[in-house]
Amino acid sequence: LHPRTHLSKESIFSRMSRLAQQFGAVNLGQGFPSNPPPAFLLEAARRAIGVVDQYTPPIGLPRLREALAEDLQVAPENVVVTAGATEALHALAEALYGPGDEVVMFEPYFDVYIPQARLAGATPVLVPMRLEDRWQVDLSALEAAITPRTKAILLNSPYNPTGSIFSHEDLERIVALARQHDLWIVSDEVYDELYFEEAPTPLRQLAPERTFTVGSAGKRLEATGYRVGWIVTPPALAPLVAGMRQWSSFCSAAPLQAAVAEALPVARREGFYSALRSSYRSRRDLLARGLEGMGIQVFLPQGTYFLTAKFPGIEAETLVREARVAIIPGAAFYADHPAPEGLFRLAFCKKPDEIELALERLERYI
Amino acid sequence: LHPRTHLSKESIFSRMSRLAQQFGAVNLGQGFPSNPPPAFLLEAARRAIGVVDQYTPPIGLPRLREALAEDLQVAPENVVVTAGATEALHALAEALYGPGDEVVMFEPYFDVYIPQARLAGATPVLVPMRLEDRWQVDLSALEAAITPRTKAILLNSPYNPTGSIFSHEDLERIVALARQHDLWIVSDEVYDELYFEEAPTPLRQLAPERTFTVGSAGKRLEATGYRVGWIVTPPALAPLVAGMRQWSSFCSAAPLQAAVAEALPVARREGFYSALRSSYRSRRDLLARGLEGMGIQVFLPQGTYFLTAKFPGIEAETLVREARVAIIPGAAFYADHPAPEGLFRLAFCKKPDEIELALERLERYI
Ligand SMILES: CSCCC(=O)C(=O)O
Ligand SMILES: CSCCC(=O)C(=O)O
Repeated sequence: LHPRTHLSKESIFSRMSRLAQQFGAVNLGQGFPSNPPPAFLLEAARRAIGVVDQYTPPIGLPRLREALAEDLQVAPENVVVTAGATEALHALAEALYGPGDEVVMFEPYFDVYIPQARLAGATPVLVPMRLEDRWQVDLSALEAAITPRTKAILLNSPYNPTGSIFSHEDLERIVALARQHDLWIVSDEVYDELYFEEAPTPLRQLAPERTFTVGSAGKRLEATGYRVGWIVTPPALAPLVAGMRQWSSFCSAAPLQAAVAEALPVARREGFYSALRSSYRSRRDLLARGLEGMGIQVFLPQGTYFLTAKFPGIEAETLVREARVAIIPGAAFYADHPAPEGLFRLAFCKKPDEIELALERLERYI
Repeated sequence: LHPRTHLSKESIFSRMSRLAQQFGAVNLGQGFPSNPPPAFLLEAARRAIGVVDQYTPPIGLPRLREALAEDLQVAPENVVVTAGATEALHALAEALYGPGDEVVMFEPYFDVYIPQARLAGATPVLVPMRLEDRWQVDLSALEAAITPRTKAILLNSPYNPTGSIFSHEDLERIVALARQHDLWIVSDEVYDELYFEEAPTPLRQLAPERTFTVGSAGKRLEATGYRVGWIVTPPALAPLVAGMRQWSSFCSAAPLQAAVAEALPVARREGFYSALRSSYRSRRDLLARGLEGMGIQVFLPQGTYFLTAKFPGIEAETLVREARVAIIPGAAFYADHPAPEGLFRLAFCKKPDEIELALERLERYI
């Protein structure tokens, strides 16, 4: 086998889900919702089965590209549909960097970023976030990380695992750096509708000429298994990106593309995202208050359905076995620096009674 | 952008489908069926929607791995589910070869093989098939193409675009070469159930220790848009291959995996594949007889739903505009050698009346 297969490993998220199932644990690990997707998506999917069953163009089903353009306020020509955000990020890694190139990203990082950069032959350069009372971006460290070999800045806002959202001012400074050094920006915005205070600024609005936005129907519509993601490209680059992604999965699941096309305007019109936000806000607060009640330090997220907290002296694989609660160890998001002592990520995209049960079990265990 | 984006191009199949639609042409180009998928698949898919909506493990939904193991008579531990056969081939390219390596394949070749090898950094080495009255494999040319840099032989049987099936004896000689030179075998068997004479021998039966078999629910169950493919690996390699494919699309569409799991045993039990074979055999004969009646030389396929034929002096893009029939130029399958003069591929996975209309239009045009 080729030595690059050292990049192959069981994903920490799948692993913790597997252990959760094995030990009957409450799964606050992998980020998928316990609630079913909304009925309007399910009905649209059932209707598409038997109607849209064959290949779509690699760039995406035309009606889905139109629906995304409408929803995101971009031109349909700049939209590429992908097999989830994972394939979007993979195609961008292949399109943007290669051996000798560096890609700057923040640490903690979402697990696919490093192997995808390495598969493309590039070197990931990690800029640590600062964690004191809260997660803070260190823009001078970002600037210091940029070299003549840097090709792109990869960022994620709302940010998995920290739950933080880059402020408009931070984004403006990042854009200024990208312009100064002529870098691409890959903006992973899969949690774009999941924020608890101000809505995040889409980076493409600040730097349309150099920003690739990555999005996900699975995250937005609570159907992580549908594998419908997208990229909004700078002008004129969509066919080229689509021409790369066609070699990894040709096209996304056709009936599910049709279903998402139908569901997107309904979600917007019926206030689905704001209902989701308030539901997640109360679940976030339930979890955070419960943890704080046990004396655990919580870093309250501004977005996503993840929360980070410090559980000194806890070990995730022991916890899932002995307390029957699955959470993700902070170390899973760190490669270059040690994770903050005792840091864990907890997903609150689960039912309130699951969160309560997890809290009870944690309390007893601790 | 990275120079490897020169590998990006509009797929000839998508392009011809687009032109077919634009000019109201009968589409005998891209290989997707006009008939809907079987009702048992559609019903299973509708039932899975709302039940199996979230991530599955990257290696595949357990019940689908079991169903595939049962159907293919292999161990479930050796099965990896992928986002169509395209992702299966992509993951294998990444897992098996890299810069400095060569992968031997036959020419004409299916369009993804070369860019996928090049994306992995490897050099594709093409062994031309011989075409006189019929397509013939040249095993001494295959042997001559093997060098100390060769890592794998990639072959496709039943073979798109030729429609030929490697004989049991040919496969035995290929396996002997692979053993002698210690090569992997990547066996693209997506048309495994589509044969008109003897059933093809699955290569893994001859060389289980070195064969990766690629298969496709889209091809078998007439649902090319579902993006459920698979790899049968040699023992102990499935987790490693799954660990590579997780970086390209994480997992396949969850409800469609569930649907295929349910449909596979039904298809087998109810004789779906043999009904499909007889239906395709009569459509093959309809198309072949019609073409021969116009004096066109046809190379009758032993399998797949493609037929090759010689139309001297015809140009595919003119044909789709002027005769309103879309077919694929032979040149799309050739990189190192010129395509045989006037060679085209015609798909007969279309309704008999579409085939008849195409024949009428071709007759008038020629
Ligand atoms: C693709 S599995 C990971 C799901 C997820 O977004 C997370 O748990 O971080
Ligand atoms: C993945 S598009 C190509 C479909 C097909 O198998 C063909 O037409 O050869």
